[in-house]
Amino acid sequence: MTNYTELTNFIRRNIDINDEDLKTVLSYFQSVQKHKNEILLPKGKNSQVSYFVIKGCLRLFYLDEEGKDITRYIAFENQFATELVSFITNQPAQEAIQVIENSELLYITHEDFRHLMKIVPVWKDFYSIYLEKAYVNNAKRLISFTTLNASERYKQLFKINPDIVKRLPNKVVASYINISQETLSRIKAKFLLKNEKRETKNT
Amino acid sequence: MTNYTELTNFIRRNIDINDEDLKTVLSYFQSVQKHKNEILLPKGKNSQVSYFVIKGCLRLFYLDEEGKDITRYIAFENQFATELVSFITNQPAQEAIQVIENSELLYITHEDFRHLMKIVPVWKDFYSIYLEKAYVNNAKRLISFTTLNASERYKQLFKINPDIVKRLPNKVVASYINISQETLSRIKAKFLLKNEKRETKNT
Repeated sequence: MTNYTELTNFIRRNIDINDEDLKTVLSYFQSVQKHKNEILLPKGKNSQVSYFVIKGCLRLFYLDEEGKDITRYIAFENQFATELVSFITNQPAQEAIQVIENSELLYITHEDFRHLMKIVPVWKDFYSIYLEKAYVNNAKRLISFTTLNASERYKQLFKINPDIVKRLPNKVVASYINISQETLSRIKAKFLLKNEKRETKNT
Repeated sequence: MTNYTELTNFIRRNIDINDEDLKTVLSYFQSVQKHKNEILLPKGKNSQVSYFVIKGCLRLFYLDEEGKDITRYIAFENQFATELVSFITNQPAQEAIQVIENSELLYITHEDFRHLMKIVPVWKDFYSIYLEKAYVNNAKRLISFTTLNASERYKQLFKINPDIVKRLPNKVVASYINISQETLSRIKAKFLLKNEKRETKNT
């Protein structure tokens, strides 16, 4: 049986929705289990989907011209992962979605998501709130890429989103703050040394 | 008398709105003339406003820790300029708005913008579309900062938004693609030389 508890809570935290509308919304979501490292490739426009993470972790990433892998977004439990630019522009996705940990997911096609906005008016509010959060997230990342150096970006990530640093492999962390794995290792070593010194001082 | 023609056209291009609702929306906008180089500083939360450019040009910018000036967004005629993160989070603005050319503007306070979403339901659709465009714009900039080098960023800007390169001073262009003015001068010289060679070849 599909587990809608987390998604229900997530929706209710964001909008006021009555039971009937909620039932309609949930009926468009399907559950799926995905394995670590799987790439959830968009196959043509209509198969593009948004995922909601019940358990596990997904990342959205793209490749630059030299094939360098850049992670744009990481979704843990109770978060959506969507290729929003493709959703908005109705163009093929530029980003791929990869499973980082074995995951239990719900998904909805972009087509159904848009259909829901027509038949359940309050779903438009959900979309607006979703867009707002995505905008703020991207704006903050844009600021960090233009104002902070590699080491500062790592420290900021550790402060704001420690789960990314603690739970995910170095490869993903490095590609999230757009540095090489070697640079990340150096920064982490310095960072740990500093923290150890601070702890020794305080004892 | 306030000139609402451009804003009316802009709104009608984005949403279906009846005359009465349009009248209500326009009644919350006021006109103002601003001089080149003026900083339109937000004075406290309630005085934060969105601008619509009838004539002229505005930029949104922020400063990094060393005081380096970074331009996040440039609005020419028929575009809005809003500190969206502040609008969304209701926190003090992180970005300032500066007048780049003598400008004829309309403005609305964030408070009134939100109030309009309550009394004119279709204004919510306008906001969603506005958010979508802002998201796509920021996402593309995020990709360009993480995948392109200085010279590639300049070429991309020249291709996608030539007005910024042609109409604005080097200082603003450099701060928009996050490079120094010296680097911009070098890139421009190379770029012009290449184009001249191409033209000579074609004659």
